[in-house]
Amino acid sequence: MTKTIDFQTDPSSYRHWRLEYDGNVANLIMDVDENGGLFDGYELKLNSYDLGVDIELADIVQRMRFEHPEVGAVVMKSGKDKVFCAGANIRMLGGAAHAHKVNFCKFTNETRNTFEKAGEESGQHYIAAVKGACAGGGYELALACDKIFMTDDGSTAVSLPEVPLLAVLPGTGGLTRVTDKRKVRRDRADVFCSFEEGVKGKRAQEWRLVDAVVPNSKFDDFVESEAKSIAEKAKAGKDLKGIKLGPLDRKLHDDGSLVYSLVEVDVQRKEGIATITIKGPDQEVPASTSALHELGDQYWALRLARELDDAILHLRLNELELGVVVFKTAGEPEAVLAHEKFLMDNRQDDWLSNEILLYIKRLLKRIDVTSRSLVALVENGSCFAGFLAELLFAVDRSYMMEGDFEEDNRPVAAITLSEANFGPFPMANDLSRLETRFLGEPEMVDKAKEQAGEPLEAFDADELGLITEAYDELDWDDEVRIFLEERASFSPDAMTGMEANLRFAGPETMETRIFGRLTAWQNWIFQRPNAVGESGALQRYGTGVRGEYDMKRV
Amino acid sequence: MTKTIDFQTDPSSYRHWRLEYDGNVANLIMDVDENGGLFDGYELKLNSYDLGVDIELADIVQRMRFEHPEVGAVVMKSGKDKVFCAGANIRMLGGAAHAHKVNFCKFTNETRNTFEKAGEESGQHYIAAVKGACAGGGYELALACDKIFMTDDGSTAVSLPEVPLLAVLPGTGGLTRVTDKRKVRRDRADVFCSFEEGVKGKRAQEWRLVDAVVPNSKFDDFVESEAKSIAEKAKAGKDLKGIKLGPLDRKLHDDGSLVYSLVEVDVQRKEGIATITIKGPDQEVPASTSALHELGDQYWALRLARELDDAILHLRLNELELGVVVFKTAGEPEAVLAHEKFLMDNRQDDWLSNEILLYIKRLLKRIDVTSRSLVALVENGSCFAGFLAELLFAVDRSYMMEGDFEEDNRPVAAITLSEANFGPFPMANDLSRLETRFLGEPEMVDKAKEQAGEPLEAFDADELGLITEAYDELDWDDEVRIFLEERASFSPDAMTGMEANLRFAGPETMETRIFGRLTAWQNWIFQRPNAVGESGALQRYGTGVRGEYDMKRV
Repeated sequence: MTKTIDFQTDPSSYRHWRLEYDGNVANLIMDVDENGGLFDGYELKLNSYDLGVDIELADIVQRMRFEHPEVGAVVMKSGKDKVFCAGANIRMLGGAAHAHKVNFCKFTNETRNTFEKAGEESGQHYIAAVKGACAGGGYELALACDKIFMTDDGSTAVSLPEVPLLAVLPGTGGLTRVTDKRKVRRDRADVFCSFEEGVKGKRAQEWRLVDAVVPNSKFDDFVESEAKSIAEKAKAGKDLKGIKLGPLDRKLHDDGSLVYSLVEVDVQRKEGIATITIKGPDQEVPASTSALHELGDQYWALRLARELDDAILHLRLNELELGVVVFKTAGEPEAVLAHEKFLMDNRQDDWLSNEILLYIKRLLKRIDVTSRSLVALVENGSCFAGFLAELLFAVDRSYMMEGDFEEDNRPVAAITLSEANFGPFPMANDLSRLETRFLGEPEMVDKAKEQAGEPLEAFDADELGLITEAYDELDWDDEVRIFLEERASFSPDAMTGMEANLRFAGPETMETRIFGRLTAWQNWIFQRPNAVGESGALQRYGTGVRGEYDMKRV
Repeated sequence: MTKTIDFQTDPSSYRHWRLEYDGNVANLIMDVDENGGLFDGYELKLNSYDLGVDIELADIVQRMRFEHPEVGAVVMKSGKDKVFCAGANIRMLGGAAHAHKVNFCKFTNETRNTFEKAGEESGQHYIAAVKGACAGGGYELALACDKIFMTDDGSTAVSLPEVPLLAVLPGTGGLTRVTDKRKVRRDRADVFCSFEEGVKGKRAQEWRLVDAVVPNSKFDDFVESEAKSIAEKAKAGKDLKGIKLGPLDRKLHDDGSLVYSLVEVDVQRKEGIATITIKGPDQEVPASTSALHELGDQYWALRLARELDDAILHLRLNELELGVVVFKTAGEPEAVLAHEKFLMDNRQDDWLSNEILLYIKRLLKRIDVTSRSLVALVENGSCFAGFLAELLFAVDRSYMMEGDFEEDNRPVAAITLSEANFGPFPMANDLSRLETRFLGEPEMVDKAKEQAGEPLEAFDADELGLITEAYDELDWDDEVRIFLEERASFSPDAMTGMEANLRFAGPETMETRIFGRLTAWQNWIFQRPNAVGESGALQRYGTGVRGEYDMKRV
């Protein structure tokens, strides 16, 4: 699995999903092309999926928000007979490297979270219409929907058969959503998760596994009418027209570096470091929301978010040995703040302004859970202002230039906070990044707030606790270099574990549990011989021979 | 490492710790015997510890509460020059099997949690008096104390060098306590956890890593005076006299079975099942609290708790292939409730009644985090009443006999709830087990409460959602057998992961994060070649050659 994985796609290229629009309702039909696997060596039978199928789904979910804001209900259904979705493809999992499995689970989790939040945030409610076997990752797709409707046809069942069948966990939030979202009684959850056949009919509803079980003859009508009513409630009286998300302006060079219109990724493979430079606004603040809509996907902040999102995903899946990601910015802080203010001022009345901000929220969360050491360098000429300053609180460490740097004519390094740093972009723990940073000194959040709008140079930024360390010209190069070298030399696994524990202090949510706890257990199991060994369940799957297990309990 | 590990010890056998009592203050001196390792192959240099050292500490913490209730402050200090504690012994870790490492971490975590809670619960406040290097598990010992005082002698530092030095995590709650208890700013935590040398002097206090830094010349006086004042505040006017915890009445048989006065552990090695049978009261309710004190460690509930605690620990460390633990009880439910009522009625005024209840709380939590499939069988003649009924909500599944069983003259199976099931024994998530069980149907908690005091036979218990399933005479044997066989056949790792995720729905606490999240990441890293491989950091430790790392990020 060494080919470059591309996260960009568009409806004309979909192989696995179809969309049918019916007013405010979209029907999202999963109809996986068996021969359309991202890699060789497996067939995507029974609507099973691999990363390629999920890349399309992520694209659909994203376009639904930007291109189809009129949609209030998305009905997820199967295009195949007798099967809704069989979950992640087992042969793909059996053949995949550990890192690919883990990254695959992370990306699918992010996509599930995205459509799960779409109802509350954007009035786009996902509904699972389950007909046929809905197993493992298939049921996890449904679990992330706002509603799960299931037909009562005598055979349709929901199940999480990973544990008995594959000796791994349902890894896309399944266990967490069963206990925390569906609030299934714990012993029933235990029965359900260790029972290959799953649960069907009324019992599924009684056990809170689905929201409604409907006789097969009435199922389609029921779903249609529910979807219409949900969509109507969500979008009543709104006449929204989407914008088009065109292809990204992107160039991938042989040395691994990536150049977009606003984002540059410089790759030092030998050193294990990727440096992402983000450019500030290259255009004026739109004169009005209609001007914004006219700009559409060419609008600065949206273009930036899409490019940075793509860059992060690219690094995650395609550049496994770059353990350190450095963020830099270049541009005018005032311009960043002016654009941000435009979006914030219009978020109530203009869906597009709001969606761009929501997208930035998701993007920042994606950075939070990226298992690379994240560093920000606040250099002269940078524009860490407002939402771009959030990067400073998303990273593990930040360093800032202090004082005069000879032969550097760029404006002196400064950080400018704005209202964006105090609420609109919560982390997975539902706190702002500054609240999380200052859990032990909550008064520091207020102090920082008082300085919103002021360009803060190194001394002030340090006093306010906004950066890890400031260095003057004498020390800057050496200190930064030494730190990066040392960081890149540590055991990547220890870094991943340490960062996963240090990044999310404070309260936990379903989201932090999925990325923090469930993921860690799954990672562990994904290393254990009982699952992935030569005689393990994943390798033996489909041979008719059960996996051989070391029976020691750990 | 195949010798049987014994968790029972007493002060006359301690090799690693000394105690000096000074009124309400106890000085707990760590002075590890280099040659006193639990296994061969390593020396416990520099006050480093292995499981044997921690078994003594657990014993001390337990005896402090029961034998020395007069103590209000326990000062943890080192008996060695220049080192407080160097943490877990690396050679021991390098040589230990995965399961031993994991179980070792779990037990040490439980011990840390126990003395951490002793202040709030029993007015016994642990204070770390740090002189000399305080590294890794050494700092984690300090982190679990109520206060950390550090001398400013120019060299004493606290550190968590696991990541840079060993490529593993600080695994005894270190990362979690740094962020969640000490609330260290995240980037400082990142610096601290990747900096071998650690932090000393004023900076340690500024960074919230310690509570006070005191000039070396004044340090001992400062600690003594603080300890006295804390102890005085905690125990002022109380004249408490402890009871003696004598040796357990225990017999370990060759086939692995264990027999105590009130607990029997039947071991079916081939089937992978341990059955624990708990006996109800074998004595009358004490006539008064002084009668209770006279009974001391021979009092039923205390004897039961000690025996069951020992049995659980024995199974965890010494019987790794018993994947399923079945709980049964035998006795009179009314007698259980009468004893419980005595303790509950006296908990306010009698420290011993209170300590017994607190011990039961800890014991139930230890069961919650035991990574075996836990099952309860509610048979005729059983006494799942009050706190013993908590076992039903601690296990993964419970089965109950329903209706007449021919040739079974025992009283018909019934469950009786009491106030004990609605608050005094919270889980790690700070909810009662019934609240956790009924997260999705909170009204069921109230319904159950209305039935407190009533013996509930299978039909009612099932209606109230208190059991997983009830079977009559026709089905009981087969259903139970089939379930146990199937359960024991699953991959142990998948069970561990699944149970760890299903058991703790609802809110998270520092405790759930330590056992749920931190532990899972550490388990993962404890399997990764960078840490435990032949050229990994743990194996290479002390050779002067750094570990060889696969630089792929996962």
